[in-house]
Amino acid sequence: MDRNEQQPIEQVLNAPTSRRSFLRWTGMAAAAGTMVACGRESALTIEPATVPPATATTAPAGTDHGNGGHGTGNAGTPTTDSGAKAWEEMDKMHEAGIKLFPAKTEGLSMQPLEYRMEGDVKVFELTCQKTMWEVEPGRKLEAWTYNGQLPGPEIRVTEGDKVRILVTNQLDESTAVHWHGLFVPNNQDGVPFITQPPITPGSTYTYEFTVRNSGSHMYHSHHNSTKQVSMGLLGPFIVEPKDKSKDPAYDKEFTLVLNDTAQGFTINGKGFPATVPLTAKLGQKIRIRYMNEGLMIHPMHLHGMPQLVFAKDGWNLPQPFMCDTLNVAPGERWDVIVDCTDPGVWAFHCHILSHAESEHGMFGMVTALIVE
Amino acid sequence: MDRNEQQPIEQVLNAPTSRRSFLRWTGMAAAAGTMVACGRESALTIEPATVPPATATTAPAGTDHGNGGHGTGNAGTPTTDSGAKAWEEMDKMHEAGIKLFPAKTEGLSMQPLEYRMEGDVKVFELTCQKTMWEVEPGRKLEAWTYNGQLPGPEIRVTEGDKVRILVTNQLDESTAVHWHGLFVPNNQDGVPFITQPPITPGSTYTYEFTVRNSGSHMYHSHHNSTKQVSMGLLGPFIVEPKDKSKDPAYDKEFTLVLNDTAQGFTINGKGFPATVPLTAKLGQKIRIRYMNEGLMIHPMHLHGMPQLVFAKDGWNLPQPFMCDTLNVAPGERWDVIVDCTDPGVWAFHCHILSHAESEHGMFGMVTALIVE
Amino acid sequence: MDRNEQQPIEQVLNAPTSRRSFLRWTGMAAAAGTMVACGRESALTIEPATVPPATATTAPAGTDHGNGGHGTGNAGTPTTDSGAKAWEEMDKMHEAGIKLFPAKTEGLSMQPLEYRMEGDVKVFELTCQKTMWEVEPGRKLEAWTYNGQLPGPEIRVTEGDKVRILVTNQLDESTAVHWHGLFVPNNQDGVPFITQPPITPGSTYTYEFTVRNSGSHMYHSHHNSTKQVSMGLLGPFIVEPKDKSKDPAYDKEFTLVLNDTAQGFTINGKGFPATVPLTAKLGQKIRIRYMNEGLMIHPMHLHGMPQLVFAKDGWNLPQPFMCDTLNVAPGERWDVIVDCTDPGVWAFHCHILSHAESEHGMFGMVTALIVE
Repeated sequence: MDRNEQQPIEQVLNAPTSRRSFLRWTGMAAAAGTMVACGRESALTIEPATVPPATATTAPAGTDHGNGGHGTGNAGTPTTDSGAKAWEEMDKMHEAGIKLFPAKTEGLSMQPLEYRMEGDVKVFELTCQKTMWEVEPGRKLEAWTYNGQLPGPEIRVTEGDKVRILVTNQLDESTAVHWHGLFVPNNQDGVPFITQPPITPGSTYTYEFTVRNSGSHMYHSHHNSTKQVSMGLLGPFIVEPKDKSKDPAYDKEFTLVLNDTAQGFTINGKGFPATVPLTAKLGQKIRIRYMNEGLMIHPMHLHGMPQLVFAKDGWNLPQPFMCDTLNVAPGERWDVIVDCTDPGVWAFHCHILSHAESEHGMFGMVTALIVE
Repeated sequence: MDRNEQQPIEQVLNAPTSRRSFLRWTGMAAAAGTMVACGRESALTIEPATVPPATATTAPAGTDHGNGGHGTGNAGTPTTDSGAKAWEEMDKMHEAGIKLFPAKTEGLSMQPLEYRMEGDVKVFELTCQKTMWEVEPGRKLEAWTYNGQLPGPEIRVTEGDKVRILVTNQLDESTAVHWHGLFVPNNQDGVPFITQPPITPGSTYTYEFTVRNSGSHMYHSHHNSTKQVSMGLLGPFIVEPKDKSKDPAYDKEFTLVLNDTAQGFTINGKGFPATVPLTAKLGQKIRIRYMNEGLMIHPMHLHGMPQLVFAKDGWNLPQPFMCDTLNVAPGERWDVIVDCTDPGVWAFHCHILSHAESEHGMFGMVTALIVE
Repeated sequence: MDRNEQQPIEQVLNAPTSRRSFLRWTGMAAAAGTMVACGRESALTIEPATVPPATATTAPAGTDHGNGGHGTGNAGTPTTDSGAKAWEEMDKMHEAGIKLFPAKTEGLSMQPLEYRMEGDVKVFELTCQKTMWEVEPGRKLEAWTYNGQLPGPEIRVTEGDKVRILVTNQLDESTAVHWHGLFVPNNQDGVPFITQPPITPGSTYTYEFTVRNSGSHMYHSHHNSTKQVSMGLLGPFIVEPKDKSKDPAYDKEFTLVLNDTAQGFTINGKGFPATVPLTAKLGQKIRIRYMNEGLMIHPMHLHGMPQLVFAKDGWNLPQPFMCDTLNVAPGERWDVIVDCTDPGVWAFHCHILSHAESEHGMFGMVTALIVE
């Protein structure tokens, strides 16, 4: 099975099948756009309440004031006057966001973290640092990251592995790392003043433990955590089971880290249209590892195909269940299998709609599953 | 099994058993009301934080300043001075709300949507339109509805049916319809610029697909959805299984669409006291289909009898479980059976109490199960 | 099996094993504190958004401006100038909170409620009253309590018991008691104007019913409930099963009532560091009864050991499941077993981090499981 594909952007854009269906309407819209000339500035009135300030999109205020993507439907044609109407401006913004997807941004997320062996111990290194983070094209914010990534690099080991993790703090305040979901000796648990001293600015701290339980876990700051985790000190810690038969069969896997704090509404540190689509070939089974590092629930709704939920917090459920909308609460991880039986570009988003769409178009916690 | 009863108001008011218990205390209170004379205006201080602006109730500022419903309990009698006290005013407002329940309002919800056959296809028609919607007696708001109903008309078919749905847009902005929970071909999925062009103002768009999966589903706008779904573009899409043995046995069923957006806190588009009670005869089993179309969770608490939860998002659970408070997240649907073993008027409400009661009395997401 | 230990503070402070690990780092920090002299006032800038006003901690503005708990880690030493730095001030505040835990406050919670027998009926008495309630050291607020306790006294009976509960209202407004989760005759259900008159100020009302179902239940006001439950009119109602084999085996039990209203973020009416730790001996199994009496979800994350979830709302699940983070919604109760296999002081908190930690340090919904 493959790992997450963090940069499939060009591949996806050039893939024959998925882009064909995906661009059918946007292409249509672009063509239609030439049919209407107009010179007004946007007359859109945006309701502030539905546009979180942290997530204002940056749809380019271009000169292409076309009648974007209105289509004609099967009957009836809207009468248009000489100027662009509010709804045409709105549709144009919605279309512009879709056309940008998946949009290129600077900054990689969750790259596999290399390790070196020292005896039988896998040694990893994490550095807490300030990073200018591009959430969506053009929206850059100071983030606090592990190794410049948000979420931090993926630590992936196998049940029973011995690990040593050196954490260097290059921030202006102390920190500590909690291995959320892993069962570790108390003095490796990462809670300052209870199990260890804080890792002060400029210092390095070493964690060392044997990985006892498999599953989809996380690591994140446990010091001034509302601020530090919000700013980006979080990452996935995935433990493959020693007994592979514990896992259901799947061909590919994806980790989706949900967040709603300092970067706005994000999946894997990016907001739509900079989120990365999940891709699969028809007939493949994919595994999705949901992890909520935010402060709100996110009921994740996949269009087109059901989700078979088989594990919570790294523990297999006694009996898997099916759903199309999975409610993921802060701190929880859920693992699901999707059987990719239906080709197409399937919207995939948080169903708290205000986390996913404003009058400017889709933003935040939206991505797609592309089955080709 | 019967369908939802959308207008049982008079029936309920006149039903011998249920109203007997229901009115026992309110009648008592009315009688007691004649015993105390008072002339002060209400001295109630309302905490703004606990009274959402959208849900300020409209308890009539009548002239009946009786000592409403204080009752006497089993021991002790509160000393009253010559003027009505703050608590008496408060109790009177609480009682007034209850006495109005179920209050008549204009506007039907979720009426069965008629269809015509064209060959072997069931053809439905939905029109998106602006409607003045009465949420509670006297509180009317502009809503955007399907066919003038909020939630929209109930589409009910059987697994395997072929359907064609004509959607006409009479709004001032484009729209599109997503069949939430149904497995449809990608190009019928209702996501503008990904699977179709938006349905522009004045146009009609046709969806057509075979219904592949049974269960409690929904349809709603997937364009500018935070606004459009909030304004009312949502409805239930119920698919009966071809194999009826898939469902547990029940005598009656009810759909409860939960919402918390432009109309305030509502069940089926109405706030208490305009919500419709569920009614059943002693010994009947009822099925409740919960659907959350809002932006918040709603843990639904039924008094008196437990809920057997047997399906999520249209999928039967591998093993049903029992509860009295079922947390329903946005986009989720849950199906439960209640065995009506205990007669009486049982309160039934969201247990986020601020969605259900203010110092003015009960409002919003409150109804009752009346077992007679 | 033991009951909750509501006042194990001195015991815990003096317990040899648990305090040894718990104080190791705080002692270390105190020693380190003598090495740095400084005279500046705190330069901490607190982000208002992350410090709920109701939960501002009261860390003493002492004169001990030591380099609190910076530790040195395994490598690197932060350069310090002559004055205390912002991060040192912040760490000192974090440490101060931990050192106070478990902090003494006035006011007991959930003491077993005594009863007297009248024939075969257990007679309990509850008085609704105003109480000055100390949430954390020095933060006292007016609360509305049952018998001066918040949560109210624990009512504990056995399935099949006949109970009579006299409720006296010493508040300035009417009230009523709902037995949340218990199946009672309709006229004992506690909903004013539907099943009974309100209990007016100064009066006493009598409830009487046979307890039909076991499990972790609650009692709380059902009149002006958003305000009254928020102010503190709530308590646990625990029903032991007649057939003890219904429960899994456990050595000790704890009830955790979660809240987020008038007292801020609390567990059993107290905010950290005044919360009471759970204590167990190595190898013991503990049962935790979660009850949410607030308006928000609280995903409760226990470090170190998994939770086996076996009951919801008093009903055994058909199959228990494992987790480390259990999402508890308002009105829900969940029962879990923790097998105390790992010694140490394990953080235990709501994983909505803003309910648990600010730049001042941990507060609110934080406690610990101490396994010795």
